[in-house]
Amino acid sequence: MTQTLLHILALLLVLIGTFVTAIRSSRPTLSILSNEPFSYAEYDNLLGPDFEVFNYTQTLDHFNFKPESYMTFQQRYIMNFKYWGGCNTSSPIFVYMGAEIDVTKLVFISGFFQILSSRFKGLMVYIEHRYYGTSMPFGSKEEAYKDANNLGFFSSEQALADYAQLITSLKQSLSAQNCPVIAVGGSYGGMLATWFRLKYPHIVYGALAASAPILYFEGLTPENGYAVVVSNDFNSTSESCYKTIRESWYEIDRVADQPNGLLNLSKMFNTCLPLNTTQELKDSLESRYNYIAQYNYNNSLHKFCNASDALGNETYVLSKVMAGYNAVFGQRCNMVINEGLSKDFGWDWQSCTEMVMPMGRGENDTMFQAKPFDIINFTKQCELVFGVTPRLYWAPIEFGGYDIKQVLSKFGSNIIFSNGLRDPYCSGGVLQNISDSIIAIYTQEGHHCWDLHTPTASDPDWLVAQRTTEIKVVEEWLAAYI
Amino acid sequence: MTQTLLHILALLLVLIGTFVTAIRSSRPTLSILSNEPFSYAEYDNLLGPDFEVFNYTQTLDHFNFKPESYMTFQQRYIMNFKYWGGCNTSSPIFVYMGAEIDVTKLVFISGFFQILSSRFKGLMVYIEHRYYGTSMPFGSKEEAYKDANNLGFFSSEQALADYAQLITSLKQSLSAQNCPVIAVGGSYGGMLATWFRLKYPHIVYGALAASAPILYFEGLTPENGYAVVVSNDFNSTSESCYKTIRESWYEIDRVADQPNGLLNLSKMFNTCLPLNTTQELKDSLESRYNYIAQYNYNNSLHKFCNASDALGNETYVLSKVMAGYNAVFGQRCNMVINEGLSKDFGWDWQSCTEMVMPMGRGENDTMFQAKPFDIINFTKQCELVFGVTPRLYWAPIEFGGYDIKQVLSKFGSNIIFSNGLRDPYCSGGVLQNISDSIIAIYTQEGHHCWDLHTPTASDPDWLVAQRTTEIKVVEEWLAAYI
Repeated sequence: MTQTLLHILALLLVLIGTFVTAIRSSRPTLSILSNEPFSYAEYDNLLGPDFEVFNYTQTLDHFNFKPESYMTFQQRYIMNFKYWGGCNTSSPIFVYMGAEIDVTKLVFISGFFQILSSRFKGLMVYIEHRYYGTSMPFGSKEEAYKDANNLGFFSSEQALADYAQLITSLKQSLSAQNCPVIAVGGSYGGMLATWFRLKYPHIVYGALAASAPILYFEGLTPENGYAVVVSNDFNSTSESCYKTIRESWYEIDRVADQPNGLLNLSKMFNTCLPLNTTQELKDSLESRYNYIAQYNYNNSLHKFCNASDALGNETYVLSKVMAGYNAVFGQRCNMVINEGLSKDFGWDWQSCTEMVMPMGRGENDTMFQAKPFDIINFTKQCELVFGVTPRLYWAPIEFGGYDIKQVLSKFGSNIIFSNGLRDPYCSGGVLQNISDSIIAIYTQEGHHCWDLHTPTASDPDWLVAQRTTEIKVVEEWLAAYI
Repeated sequence: MTQTLLHILALLLVLIGTFVTAIRSSRPTLSILSNEPFSYAEYDNLLGPDFEVFNYTQTLDHFNFKPESYMTFQQRYIMNFKYWGGCNTSSPIFVYMGAEIDVTKLVFISGFFQILSSRFKGLMVYIEHRYYGTSMPFGSKEEAYKDANNLGFFSSEQALADYAQLITSLKQSLSAQNCPVIAVGGSYGGMLATWFRLKYPHIVYGALAASAPILYFEGLTPENGYAVVVSNDFNSTSESCYKTIRESWYEIDRVADQPNGLLNLSKMFNTCLPLNTTQELKDSLESRYNYIAQYNYNNSLHKFCNASDALGNETYVLSKVMAGYNAVFGQRCNMVINEGLSKDFGWDWQSCTEMVMPMGRGENDTMFQAKPFDIINFTKQCELVFGVTPRLYWAPIEFGGYDIKQVLSKFGSNIIFSNGLRDPYCSGGVLQNISDSIIAIYTQEGHHCWDLHTPTASDPDWLVAQRTTEIKVVEEWLAAYI
């Protein structure tokens, strides 16, 4: 365990050191961690000796029976038997739901999963989501991402069915049919954990869904939910800091309208390349604010606002913004965000198909300027980049969400929705108890997926308490398992 | 209503008059009624004025996002607003789950659905299952059934998603978002109703699943379950009749081994064409016994056994069989069954893909000769006829069934599993209460889907009582609907 913790600490340092490059779009990143371009090999090498990597021969298409549906691909999963009580003791199997990321990363970032497993003598299984990491249909990422025909099998329903098939096969080979399975996941992985419990209750006995915005779909959550929480995070950290940011957009517009405006802004914001539009700058800044509010790594909210506020009320508003910015991201030049969709970015495909999360805001409801969600333009981009049209209304039909309390109060059980109210994604999360065993555990201070992260000695009491409650609830579930 | 009843009576007469041709395979027909080759137009003309036929533009593939997944087809559904309380009263919407049959047939055969709807001021919606009736992708049955590429989208998961999408759209267009939906289905349609409640609880509030063998899958139910009930049906009707049938197989073998044996058997059994093998004859007879036991139309079990027994113990065993046979099926020549799979028969495709129900029996456990389920041979046939390989293990992974009581006792609600214990398919049904609201309502005397059939004045008390209980349970569900 010590060795593993060291690995994780090493990784966290790497993460923190590189997270400036991590942000590739002003659209918020739905991930337990942001999508920084790490080398996968780096992670593989860091996996401790208790982690074993396997491949499962997975069916390409579970729901159709065309000849191509029978094709297979190698789905990666990682197991750790260190704590497992074995197949004869009904020790649980904890399954970490791979999400939009290389599965080996999840091993490092989600140390709480190891705590849970050790607490209950559980087997640890991390399953990679299709089309991420090495779990590529058609042999390689290049082929898998080639076009909409090959990407076409990349859906959450197929991923859930992958998990169902792999777990069933695994239990059989381990003679562990009677072991309860508990699914754990964060962010999109938490959505998958929820849906897995709801759609495959015969395979998974309970789910811990951390920071899972299962309600962030059309018609379920106000589109400004995310931006409102980002704004509140800054406002509650420092009202003057919040005001600085809110004013800065208009000052950017004003400067841009002057001679050499863009050039001056480029200098002012130390952009690596000259700005082409003010929107580039605005998107970049927004993306950084989102990042700070969502993850709050290293207390970056306070870092930003302290540095900004320290300059005093009389200082030029854009200087205050840059002071905050530099305090968090350092003095390196500012890489301007590419707002567009990327053909190589799996989550963009998912956003363009069924995981369409409408995000925008109106006038004066946030610290940002108005920018309503524009499905028409988004659709155009998706068609251009992927040749695919978003199914805006599909996810709530397939996975539910409308009137969730009424629907699930008499249906379903054993789901924990954990959230931190400072996580902008909590706006699409479940924040109320739905029944005795579908419960919400949230903290006022928490950010995105903090409960799943590797516990450290400096964790605040409320975070320790949140994890303790989660363990207690899982304990109750397992005690009731026949 | 009177007019509708007259229609139904007219239909039943047609049904009964033609059911000899209805049986096309010795494999038991999983259907609320058997698959007789009616003219669909015949049914359309018989639909009363309260039934309105519509088409919905349905998505071809709900779970993938390939370019072809976005194709659409016209899915037929029928509505009847006669009893509906309207969108402002939260009157329920009763949805009849189309199954492996033209949906218009279901309107006639399932009169209890109309009773239910009238009782609760419900809107009636009958939705046709894709690849049946007129709900053909690719424009026509000929195209839809052309090859495995076009048939490939023909799956239960896609059908359930069709229902989810159509119902959501319908509720929206009727401003009926707050109306509870109750799904009703018989046989395969009952399986769909169950799975629909389990997978889409946010769309359907409760399910009445009549004679639904949701457990008749690999590893869940002994493969001889069906044949054992058929045997018991004959045995409990008349032990001597049962013995006659049991002995007849060996006598057929004995006669066949003699000179001109097959010719003599052809004459004896009045086959329309000369027999090629004894297996043809055995399959045909078995198919008739299955049919009699499953449906018991017009009390055919007693008719068969009375006529057979009337000849006395001294009569030649095959003469006794023929006496029973003629009493039920008339004196017309005996069409020998084609045992093979048919490329035009939708259920054969479904059996060859995911609805693989292992049926067979050993030595001496039934009134039939031994015939274990032979997955290898079955697979060969499926590959030959459809170019598709059965996924024997998939349905229990996707839909559950293993340890159902434990799994659903703490998960799910509002399902009625109704069965008649004389229905051979009850062997794969749920015959125990699973929780307060997932309950089994069965009768000792009932056959396949009798509770769903149109009530008549001559229905026995236990059948009336079964339906009354079902209505009462639905009433309780609706009373609890907020």
